[in-house]
Amino acid sequence: MQQAKPTHQEPADGHDLQPPAGGRSAIDFDRYLRERAALVERALGECVPAPAGPAGRLFEAMRYSLLAGGKRLRPVLALAACEAVGGTLDAALSLACAIEMIHTYSLVHDDLPCMDDDDLRRGRPTNHKVFGEAIATLAGDGLLTDAFKVLAAAATSSCSARSAQALLETIAELADAAGSAGMVGGQVIDVLGEGQALELDQLEYLHSKKTGALFVAAVCGGARLGGASAAQLNSMREYAQALGLAFQVIDDLLDVESSTETMGKRTNKDEARGKVTYPSLLGVERSRQLARDLVARADTALKRFDHRADPLRMLAAFAVERKL
Amino acid sequence: MQQAKPTHQEPADGHDLQPPAGGRSAIDFDRYLRERAALVERALGECVPAPAGPAGRLFEAMRYSLLAGGKRLRPVLALAACEAVGGTLDAALSLACAIEMIHTYSLVHDDLPCMDDDDLRRGRPTNHKVFGEAIATLAGDGLLTDAFKVLAAAATSSCSARSAQALLETIAELADAAGSAGMVGGQVIDVLGEGQALELDQLEYLHSKKTGALFVAAVCGGARLGGASAAQLNSMREYAQALGLAFQVIDDLLDVESSTETMGKRTNKDEARGKVTYPSLLGVERSRQLARDLVARADTALKRFDHRADPLRMLAAFAVERKL
Repeated sequence: MQQAKPTHQEPADGHDLQPPAGGRSAIDFDRYLRERAALVERALGECVPAPAGPAGRLFEAMRYSLLAGGKRLRPVLALAACEAVGGTLDAALSLACAIEMIHTYSLVHDDLPCMDDDDLRRGRPTNHKVFGEAIATLAGDGLLTDAFKVLAAAATSSCSARSAQALLETIAELADAAGSAGMVGGQVIDVLGEGQALELDQLEYLHSKKTGALFVAAVCGGARLGGASAAQLNSMREYAQALGLAFQVIDDLLDVESSTETMGKRTNKDEARGKVTYPSLLGVERSRQLARDLVARADTALKRFDHRADPLRMLAAFAVERKL
Repeated sequence: MQQAKPTHQEPADGHDLQPPAGGRSAIDFDRYLRERAALVERALGECVPAPAGPAGRLFEAMRYSLLAGGKRLRPVLALAACEAVGGTLDAALSLACAIEMIHTYSLVHDDLPCMDDDDLRRGRPTNHKVFGEAIATLAGDGLLTDAFKVLAAAATSSCSARSAQALLETIAELADAAGSAGMVGGQVIDVLGEGQALELDQLEYLHSKKTGALFVAAVCGGARLGGASAAQLNSMREYAQALGLAFQVIDDLLDVESSTETMGKRTNKDEARGKVTYPSLLGVERSRQLARDLVARADTALKRFDHRADPLRMLAAFAVERKL
């Protein structure tokens, strides 16, 4: 890892980026985000083979959704958490890619006709609209499975017992966050609960699984691979839980208030489906306040970290500024 | 691991089973299979939570397909390969469960209306016929994801660098075998190729991915976790490749020749769909001979192993005796 450079030259190589530094301005932060998102973008391109051979259509479908842009928020969180505890970008890059592959698979499956039946995602037709349901289902399966390959293959034959152990813990935590105890379980609750009344605590429970678990896996995994202590991991978990929930509250607000054009996906669909959301339970103003409170909670969780956690602090502010 | 006992008393505990011994009779082998399948069965029951809580329907759907019986051939292969190189059953039990969870997820997704659209599996209605398409898709996603949790969580905090490394390699190999480069890729080729003419080498390529890769992951993973050398792993790979292909040839033969009642799933469906099979390319007699040749090849691959590999030898014979 290089020392912070005084000038803002473009990095020659993706891994040769400015580490977080004190006194960061909003412009620095934009640059930080852009550089790390670009690093993730390049690495993701190498995670799925180029479309060729008899299964070429599968790789095409996987790449269609994986390389469709997006903010890359979860992978950037993984990188930022790793850097916040003094780790290098390389230590968390495979995790960053695995997280985005899993996030993407979940979008592809959630959009299927038997689930949310969505036609539009990130401004483009959804995977099954382009490739058909069978290939879309399999593209999701492929992204999910390959994510674990990308992550497990990050181990080198010479890696220390401690690194190997940290990687195994990260894999177990990611699978737990994405599986029946986490994201998949949350999606089931969402599917079964559509049109049913939910209390605020039930809604929070749903989102802690459906969205929150993967935020926690990104942040804690990144920190663990960066060498975090147990106490640091606890703080990172608090940060990620608050941020994940804030993110969901804001997503609900955006669904109510934005147009399809701005969002690149169908909006106002929550209401159309009778889904319970934060605005439907709390109203718009109290939902906004909740989002602000959650971001403040995320910030407080980071109080023991030095300036290297500034990007995490700014990412929380950024999440809430999407709307407020 | 206990020494072989002279008497055939029922083991008090699942892990307290007779190790492979020389001079094994067909009855001993039946017992061997039954005991290990029962061990896997018990362990699988602990891999998915009891149906409770707001996502209880998901666990119910996962358990419906995972605990529906079946021969447990892949997990028994993993255990047998581990024992063949002197490993304990405990060393490969998590892998055995993970393999069966992944195999089961693939059946649930393959049966979906957008894929093979099957109504019957292991003598019962398919998952989506009971739970609906959304929950069936998610039950498959949950089984696949949780499989990696089961496997990665097998690491203990005190495990050696060598064990941790072997486990990481096993996870990477399993994900490779199950993902876009393996099983998922094979299923795509199958879906896209339906009704198209295939040559013999294309059919073998398809099956090496769709069925073979998971056999190889089971056998090589089990052997690796049992402490196999690189040379032993190569032999195990040859064994598993030949066995996996033999298994598929026999599956094709069974589809032609058996009734729905015997198989517990719809038969003659390959022909109805215009799928190319070994009997359709080679005829029944030459397909039978191919299966025998492949089993002989599997047997030859094991020639450097001692009597502890007898169960693997008998498993190959058993696979082919399903029909011949």
